[in-house]
Amino acid sequence: MNEAELVARARELFSPRIGDDAAIVDGQVFTADMLVEDVDFTRAIPLRFIARKALAVNLSDLAAMGAAPSYALLSLALPPWALDGAEELLTSFAEAAKQHAIEIIGGDFSRAEKLTIAVTAIGRVVTRPLLRSGAKRGDRIYLSRPIGGSGAGLALLGGERGLGVGYAEREFVESAIRRHVDPEPEVAVGLALARIAEVTACIDVSDGLSTDLHHLCDASACGAEIERERIPIFPDLLTHGPGLGIRVSEVVLHGGEEYALLFTSSLRESEMSRLLGRPAYAIGRITAGREVVLKENGIARPLEARGYDHFG
Amino acid sequence: MNEAELVARARELFSPRIGDDAAIVDGQVFTADMLVEDVDFTRAIPLRFIARKALAVNLSDLAAMGAAPSYALLSLALPPWALDGAEELLTSFAEAAKQHAIEIIGGDFSRAEKLTIAVTAIGRVVTRPLLRSGAKRGDRIYLSRPIGGSGAGLALLGGERGLGVGYAEREFVESAIRRHVDPEPEVAVGLALARIAEVTACIDVSDGLSTDLHHLCDASACGAEIERERIPIFPDLLTHGPGLGIRVSEVVLHGGEEYALLFTSSLRESEMSRLLGRPAYAIGRITAGREVVLKENGIARPLEARGYDHFG
Repeated sequence: MNEAELVARARELFSPRIGDDAAIVDGQVFTADMLVEDVDFTRAIPLRFIARKALAVNLSDLAAMGAAPSYALLSLALPPWALDGAEELLTSFAEAAKQHAIEIIGGDFSRAEKLTIAVTAIGRVVTRPLLRSGAKRGDRIYLSRPIGGSGAGLALLGGERGLGVGYAEREFVESAIRRHVDPEPEVAVGLALARIAEVTACIDVSDGLSTDLHHLCDASACGAEIERERIPIFPDLLTHGPGLGIRVSEVVLHGGEEYALLFTSSLRESEMSRLLGRPAYAIGRITAGREVVLKENGIARPLEARGYDHFG
Repeated sequence: MNEAELVARARELFSPRIGDDAAIVDGQVFTADMLVEDVDFTRAIPLRFIARKALAVNLSDLAAMGAAPSYALLSLALPPWALDGAEELLTSFAEAAKQHAIEIIGGDFSRAEKLTIAVTAIGRVVTRPLLRSGAKRGDRIYLSRPIGGSGAGLALLGGERGLGVGYAEREFVESAIRRHVDPEPEVAVGLALARIAEVTACIDVSDGLSTDLHHLCDASACGAEIERERIPIFPDLLTHGPGLGIRVSEVVLHGGEEYALLFTSSLRESEMSRLLGRPAYAIGRITAGREVVLKENGIARPLEARGYDHFG
């Protein structure tokens, strides 16, 4: 089974609430995510960023539901090397929780060979929940911010690329790596979108634009056509990416862990941006069929879901 | 830092709600526990038992709070060997959830080198919550069922002891191993205890009687004196344990993962048993000082917390 099949089976066996970014029960919103050493991060990443990210990925799921975060539980499995850094991990969690005005109310400590962080976050619906399933034919498809930075950062983290480059390139390398290791969940945008009645569906870009657009279309029983030229690209990625060995189209279309929100609405781009008080990026339209299509240089082709799958 | 120090630091940094078996927020009860391969179980244990236990340890925390379980979230990190058994894992979770009338509403799937299962369980306070902190001087100290079986089962799992033994011994070996790999959380007892106004404090025996009695006394700012002869012993452990190499006193006093409830009340044993509709076992008294004492053969000595510590 791949990840999508596992989720489908869990939905079948456990609950129809499974399958969106988070589950809604009586106005409360629940989500859980686990980060595992050497799968989701390596020891090269400072512990404070690992802690922040473990919380951020959960808050991003709440953001995608238009929910306000309230509480979290934190289960930590610590290998000896991380036990020495437990104080740094815990204080970083505490700081990140404080920053998002959430209270960490419980959890568990265990040993393990690999550092493993499992977070459950609990939020509340303030106006209404945003679901993946409401997109309507003709809706515009939006991104909440430029993407590609996280995938570029991941690629740059691996090697020594970016070390010998000039100042402008170095700045780009640092900002891309930062986007990858210390992502900012779109909590405020999610809450704002829930207040806009014309927003019909929402998901966070955690698996990659292609895969998450497929998720949204599957849940909404619709198709999509997006335009390559309209996708907002992480600052300076087009300028410096190719020279640093980054495959720009690849990270933009399929790179995961972006945590931008991908949402749909009948509203025009200018109106949406005005209501949000910051730019929203219309990248295409919801279509009546079930195909997900990418238009580039006037040529339309199917956009495969080639984003992240833990078991792919 | 050892486990107790980590919990104390988390309480300091995160929330005063941390430190009991679970956290209470507006009548809801939240707890999280993580099981890790080669720390909490091995591949020798059938996956269906691992799944059941991952849920059971969380339900036991709810039981200790006197709460009724409602929902759970399940994060699974699967190595290749367990991916083949994902169907067995998921169906076992579904069955165990159904048995306890809870809905699994969300979670996460990830890869890992070691099978890791993180569960968050959510319950509700039906009458009132049971805390660790209410024990009063003079209260009787109770166990909800005989203990020592889980520790014996763990010891018997390891080696080949019990394989060449006779029928009666074999039966004991099987029941002890079963108690260890497939523990039954005391959900009904916890709910019943919450309805008895004279029950003053409660904790589940997950770390071992000695350690959990210390936890209860620390939270209640009191001491305790228990009598070795009054501790109810797992059936046939005294008969067959020594011959099978089990150190009976060790597993009874310090063996973890029992999931019996340890609670306090002014009520007499006969009255408590009548109210619960099954035997309750008074093993000693809460005292005014801060010492935790074991009386054995008329001799009193300090009972050290020598139960399980993940980082001990």
